[in-house]
Amino acid sequence: MTQVPDFQKGLSFEGTSGLLPAIAQDSVTGRVLMIAWMDEQAWQETRASGYAVYFSRSRGRLWRKGEISGHRQQVTEIRIDCDADAILLQVKQMGAACHEGYASCFFRSIDSDGDVKTTDSRLVDPQRVYGKNQ
Amino acid sequence: MTQVPDFQKGLSFEGTSGLLPAIAQDSVTGRVLMIAWMDEQAWQETRASGYAVYFSRSRGRLWRKGEISGHRQQVTEIRIDCDADAILLQVKQMGAACHEGYASCFFRSIDSDGDVKTTDSRLVDPQRVYGKNQ
Repeated sequence: MTQVPDFQKGLSFEGTSGLLPAIAQDSVTGRVLMIAWMDEQAWQETRASGYAVYFSRSRGRLWRKGEISGHRQQVTEIRIDCDADAILLQVKQMGAACHEGYASCFFRSIDSDGDVKTTDSRLVDPQRVYGKNQ
Repeated sequence: MTQVPDFQKGLSFEGTSGLLPAIAQDSVTGRVLMIAWMDEQAWQETRASGYAVYFSRSRGRLWRKGEISGHRQQVTEIRIDCDADAILLQVKQMGAACHEGYASCFFRSIDSDGDVKTTDSRLVDPQRVYGKNQ
């Protein structure tokens, strides 16, 4: 029987692309809000600040969630998975997690026919949050 | 204001590495069970079969979750995220989602001192499930 790896020092970014997936779950509703990526700096800053910090692959830089929108995520718990290559955050979400103005980025479901349906209502108008130039 | 992309045909694997992250959430407890990866074949087979099928990066092949352990995941809902590059499954989990015998792969938390603690108890002995040669 294999032993559970001893990750007493937390995550290891060695041997990965340098980015690990991080899931944010709403600590109040239990809803999965989003998935994003962390590099080691984002991981350390998240732990030090108590607020979710990711690495934006599209922008190629650290992304302090809510830095423009104010929709920050206060981290109430951090978990790591069995292989220590994925992160689960419990967060108190301020405003809308999704840049499209929805509470969760997972605002669409796929039915048995394969049709995609938006099941949620927007919490905020993204134009008001991010400005006209988005 | 940007429009929400129209993903009426569901996910697109084009322009990605061919693998998209898929989160499995327990439809009864709300707990995040695991994160794994899907290629297009896994995605299509998941939708066709109603059971979670992933692509195992370590084995380099399709992974019908529970094919050895019997710990299958019956999919009750499929959601996709705002960028249509991540998947959220609601599942009825049979047995333990984690190959280490825990209900969830996220069985460890990290406290404010950075110490990693196993917070859960095993549901099953992985040696019994997977045999001595694991």
